[in-house]
Order: sequence, then C-alpha cells, then structure tokens
Amino acid sequence: MPEASFQDVEWMRRALALAQGVIHTTSPNPRVGCVIVRDGQVLGEGATQPPGGPHAEVMALRAAQAAGHALAGATVYVTLEPCSHFGRTPPCADALVAAAPARVVVALGDPNPSVAGKGCARLRAAGIRVTQGVCEEEALALNAGFVARMSRGTPWAWLKLAASLDGRSALHNGASQWITGPQARADGHAWRARADVVLTGIGTVLHDDPRLNVREVATPRQPRKALVDAQLRVSPQARLFDDGPAWVFTAVKDADRTARLAERQAEVICLPDAGGQRVDLAAMMRWLAARDCNEVHVEAGAGLSGALFEAGCIDALLVYLAPVLLGDAAGMLNLPALHSLEGVRRFAFTDMVPVGGDVRLLARDPVRWQALLDSTRQALARPSL
Amino acid sequence: MPEASFQDVEWMRRALALAQGVIHTTSPNPRVGCVIVRDGQVLGEGATQPPGGPHAEVMALRAAQAAGHALAGATVYVTLEPCSHFGRTPPCADALVAAAPARVVVALGDPNPSVAGKGCARLRAAGIRVTQGVCEEEALALNAGFVARMSRGTPWAWLKLAASLDGRSALHNGASQWITGPQARADGHAWRARADVVLTGIGTVLHDDPRLNVREVATPRQPRKALVDAQLRVSPQARLFDDGPAWVFTAVKDADRTARLAERQAEVICLPDAGGQRVDLAAMMRWLAARDCNEVHVEAGAGLSGALFEAGCIDALLVYLAPVLLGDAAGMLNLPALHSLEGVRRFAFTDMVPVGGDVRLLARDPVRWQALLDSTRQALARPSL
Repeated sequence: MPEASFQDVEWMRRALALAQGVIHTTSPNPRVGCVIVRDGQVLGEGATQPPGGPHAEVMALRAAQAAGHALAGATVYVTLEPCSHFGRTPPCADALVAAAPARVVVALGDPNPSVAGKGCARLRAAGIRVTQGVCEEEALALNAGFVARMSRGTPWAWLKLAASLDGRSALHNGASQWITGPQARADGHAWRARADVVLTGIGTVLHDDPRLNVREVATPRQPRKALVDAQLRVSPQARLFDDGPAWVFTAVKDADRTARLAERQAEVICLPDAGGQRVDLAAMMRWLAARDCNEVHVEAGAGLSGALFEAGCIDALLVYLAPVLLGDAAGMLNLPALHSLEGVRRFAFTDMVPVGGDVRLLARDPVRWQALLDSTRQALARPSL
Repeated sequence: MPEASFQDVEWMRRALALAQGVIHTTSPNPRVGCVIVRDGQVLGEGATQPPGGPHAEVMALRAAQAAGHALAGATVYVTLEPCSHFGRTPPCADALVAAAPARVVVALGDPNPSVAGKGCARLRAAGIRVTQGVCEEEALALNAGFVARMSRGTPWAWLKLAASLDGRSALHNGASQWITGPQARADGHAWRARADVVLTGIGTVLHDDPRLNVREVATPRQPRKALVDAQLRVSPQARLFDDGPAWVFTAVKDADRTARLAERQAEVICLPDAGGQRVDLAAMMRWLAARDCNEVHVEAGAGLSGALFEAGCIDALLVYLAPVLLGDAAGMLNLPALHSLEGVRRFAFTDMVPVGGDVRLLARDPVRWQALLDSTRQALARPSL
C-alpha cells in the first residue's frame, strides 16, 4: 500500500460502504463506491447504479458538480479501477481526467480485459497521481464474483449449509425446518439476495418444493433460480417456477418436458458429463458465467452440495450452526470417504457472528482467493494504455 | 443489582480477574478474588490460595494491613460470598467484621450449605452495608463446578469435541490427529488444566493410548485422569497411568486386574448400571462430586461422548471446528436417531473465538445454568444467621 495514509483507509472505507449499499442492484456490473474529498471535506459521493445507469465515479462527480465544487486539489477514492472502455456508459477514466482531481486512490484493479490497468494508466497519463491497493481485500470481498467471472470465467460460488453443531442437516425422516432459527433463515435470504442465481438440486425440489426466492429481507431484485435435474424429473408446477425465470440443467434431451417448462419461463440446458447420466457441473459454472452470473448461491441437499464440492465448483462456505446435537441424522454433504487427512482441502475462516441463537461462520478457499487477488494486481501491473 | 454503580462493576471485574488467575490451584475450593478500595484507591487485593491456604478476603486484608491501611470507609469487592464456617481456615466473614469496612460488594451467593447467606448476614449484623449480585454470571462462570457440586451434588461437565466444519471427528480408518491445528490442541490443554478430572473412554485408550495430561500450557497442578471401562479391558501399561493417580470406572469385579491397576496408582470403582453391563454414568458423576471434583473435562470418542450426553451428564460444550469438509467420516458423538426436532435439547452459545486456523465455540445448557444461578440467589435470600 504505497503512499497510503490512515486517512486514505478511512475514506476508502466510506467508499466501500457506499458499494455495499448497492450490493443487490449492480450485477452483472461490479459494486463500486466513490467518494471525492478535499481538505477533509466530502465534495461528492456515489455508487454504481443498476445496469445501463452511471457508474460510481460519475455519480460522485455529478454530486460534486451539483454542489458547485470544482475538483482542483481533490482526491477521488474509488473501490475499483475506473473503466477505460465504452460499455453501456462512457469511460469513467475519461470523466475523471476531465474533472482533473489531484489524485485518485483505487482499491482494486479491474481484471476485465477491456480495463486491466488501462483506467489507471489513462489517469496517470493525464498527470493525476494514482495510489492503488488501498483496502484491496475488502474491495475484493464485495466483488469476488465479478473478478472471478472476469479472471477465470466462472462465478464465485457460495455453498450455504445449515446444521446442528455436530454437522447434521436433517433427521433421517427428513425433518430439517427448525434446526436453525428464524434469524438464521432471514440472514440466509440476505445472502440469496446478493447472488445472481440461487442453485438447488432436484432432491430438494421433490422433497421440500421450495420457492427459493428472497422473502425475509427487502430487495429490489430477485435472483434467478437454477436447478440441477439430470433426468429432468421436475414438475412444471414446482413452486421454484412461480416467480421469475429459471434455468434447469439436465443430462437428457426431452422436447416435450422442455416445452412444458418453457411455459413456466424455465429454460432447459442440456449439459451432460462424459458418462452422459449426470450434469457436467464445471461446464454449468462456465455457462452461468457466460450468462453474466457473478455470484452463485448454492442451497441444496447433501447430494448436490457434495457433488459441487467434489467437482471443485465451491469457493466459499456460508454455514449456520445451531447449538444442538443430533447424532444419528443426515450429514451436511455427501463426499467419498478419505483415506488420509493429508492434502485435504483447507478453507480459511473469515468471519463468525451470532445470528439469533445460532452462529454463522464464513470460510473461503485461500488459494482461489489469492488467485483472484493476483489477477487484480496483474491488471494494475500491466504497463500502459 | 441494587445499589451497584459502574464503579462497582469495574472493581468487581478486577476481583474476577484475580480469581481467574488462580483457576488452576484452588480446587476443590472455589476460585475467588477480592479487592479492597477506598476513594478510588486499592488498599489491598488477593485471591484464594491452594487448599489449606488463606482465602481471597484474608489475602486482601493482609495486603492492606501490610501497606498500613485501616479499612474505615473502605469497600471490599469479593467474587463469592465470604465463608461463615470453620473449614481448613477460620471464617472470612469474621475477618471482615473485625476489619470493619463500610461496605462489602459480593458477586455471587455461596450455595455451600455451611455458608448459604450466613456470610452476608453476619456482615450485615455487624453494621456493614452489603451489595449482592454484581457481575454474578461472570462469577458463576468461574465457579460453575463448585456451585454445581454444592447445589446439585454433581460436577459441572464440559464435553470437548474437535471436528471438521461438517462435524466429523475422524476418518473411517481412525485418522483424527490433524483435523484441528496445534493452537486448538494447546487451547484444549488449557481447558484440561482447569478441570479436576479429565475423563475418557476405553475406546480412546485402546485406539490412541493418550496420556491425557496437561503438556502444552504451564500448570502447577495436573488434573486427575478418569476412565470409563465397563469390562475392565485397560492394560496397566496404558500411558494414562504414567503420571499421577487415576480412577477407572467399571461394571465388573476383577480382583486380579484391580490389584495390578492399583500398582499403577489406578483405583478401580465398580458402578454397574441396572443391566449390569455398563457403567452407571450418573452415579459416576455423583461419585466424582463426593470426591470433591468440581469440573469434569470429557475428552472421549463418539461412543462415550454420546452415552454421557444421553445420560444427561453433560452441562456445556467446548467445540473446535476446522475449516475443512470431510463428508463420509466418523461423527462427533453417537446418539440414537430422533424422530422429531420438537423438544430437542438446546444449548446456548456463550462464546466464539478464532484459535489458530480453527474456531472455538462454547455453549451451555441454559436451563442448568439458570438452576445454578437460582441456587446462588436462594442462598442469599435466606433470612439470617
């Protein structure tokens, strides 16, 4: 973090808070916040608007302008490298150059190949001092999905699990509704709300017929629903299809069922694996990224949860544990027996909080996290325009 | 908390910290701290010495005396009601009456039938103002074992569990050594160190041959070891017996094996249940309390852990979770399958901290906790000398 002061960190945190405030609405664009400061005073601030609307930098510049401030001598704090290309909006880097602040502080490089250091390079070329890497991990946490899609071509996938303290998700007779409490359920809906797609499996649909939408927290946007259903067994009446479009991934071709599901806004995607009997889960993740999905929220039974984990499709864990012991009951995910603990894939805990009477633990794959971080640093390390 | 000020809470916390400092050495006596204050100045402070030595109040009084302070106008903060009976030492209540402070602030009533309100009553009879119940839950947390033994005739039992995030304690081939990390192991030894007895089962001894002593943290005292071994299968060569005396609970009489174990300082206690094939675990807990055990630390396999839980012998959970998922592997404790989640015994989380790369969760039975708290309040509510 060269040239960065404690003040820089404080202002960047304010920009991060603004980005957090638009976590439900910017996708597939990244969540970005921007604060413009001079002599300890905020001249303007803003966050990225829904797709097609202005980005954070432009919102902040407009706010400063509306308040009658010129940007001479000001510092702009922005949580992601300003874009340098014409997308649905003109390049933010150009808007910043035109406004001519003294300095721009950037949290995270943008691995989008259309940007990838060119945003910062353009600012520097215009004589603006640029500081990079302030609060970069906090900024990455907001946009791991966007960075994953840009840098590796797959979404960032959270696996949500809820269980007893001894890791049991349901009784053998299927009862699972009340292991964790209502606050944990509401919190789980907040995590659904930030995802682009909520993914489940046919077992869960046949057993629980969940709606999988966001109900317990306010959101301006419902995530899309997706279902893994290798044999295309799902009924078009499933409540999953009640509100909004859905994707159904299958391993079989069935024109009749596909047509009936289409009447319910459900698109059937046939992606069989090499054996032909199961869905190619890794290909499904690439497909989702190609459809602009940044974050996937997996909320499935032990079967699909285990299969996704085995297939390397899970990046992070969102685990709710209730203070009960259930003993002989169904586990959290089905995985083949290991013969040694050596080489077992280790996550890293990143957060733990009480949620009602339960606890919520967050953990992520540290190797994949580092790879995303590296991709943002490499973006900024590229030499020039 | 009548009559108590913020200052009272602050001083009581200092007394609690003193009690925490002697957590390894006072047993079977309670861990008690005492601070004597006048006009915001500490006149003297102290904590209970090992059995036979002076209690906290006397240590603090002596310190004040040694510094040349009389106690006129002073307030004494003590984490447990001063004793009123002649045990191995004279009554602390008498020592306080003789020193004549203006006021005594007590955290917790002493449910010991020899005290049970008489300590506070004696102070009041001498014209000393008494405030009760300041930081009582913090004080109870230090002495749940002592209070449990006094009020219900059994120790307070912690069940230590270490597992993967999905609740697996070992692979099917038995490998379990490296699920949680070295910091979690050291922290577990700190919990062993505060217990009067570390309890395990014959399965663990046959499989791992653990020493079960405190090695990874400094302690002036090793807890005793105890083993549940219904068929008396343990070898006298087991490392459990290497240092210090042990108790072996069994359901069979075998004079020959008993004699050979006695050579290793292991006392065999035959406590069969009604069926005659297993140890009566509840009776074992009463036996341990009768032998002055306040806190039991259970560190056993899934079999004994489950059996103790089922028998109602577990009061609190000490759980280390590693950020790995193991799937098909051995569970944390064996319990019969439930048919409904209704009426499932719910613990309450009381603490969560990172320990190395793992997390440590503490939880306790809220009903039993309340019962202990009530017993200390009832002690103080008794009318008189």
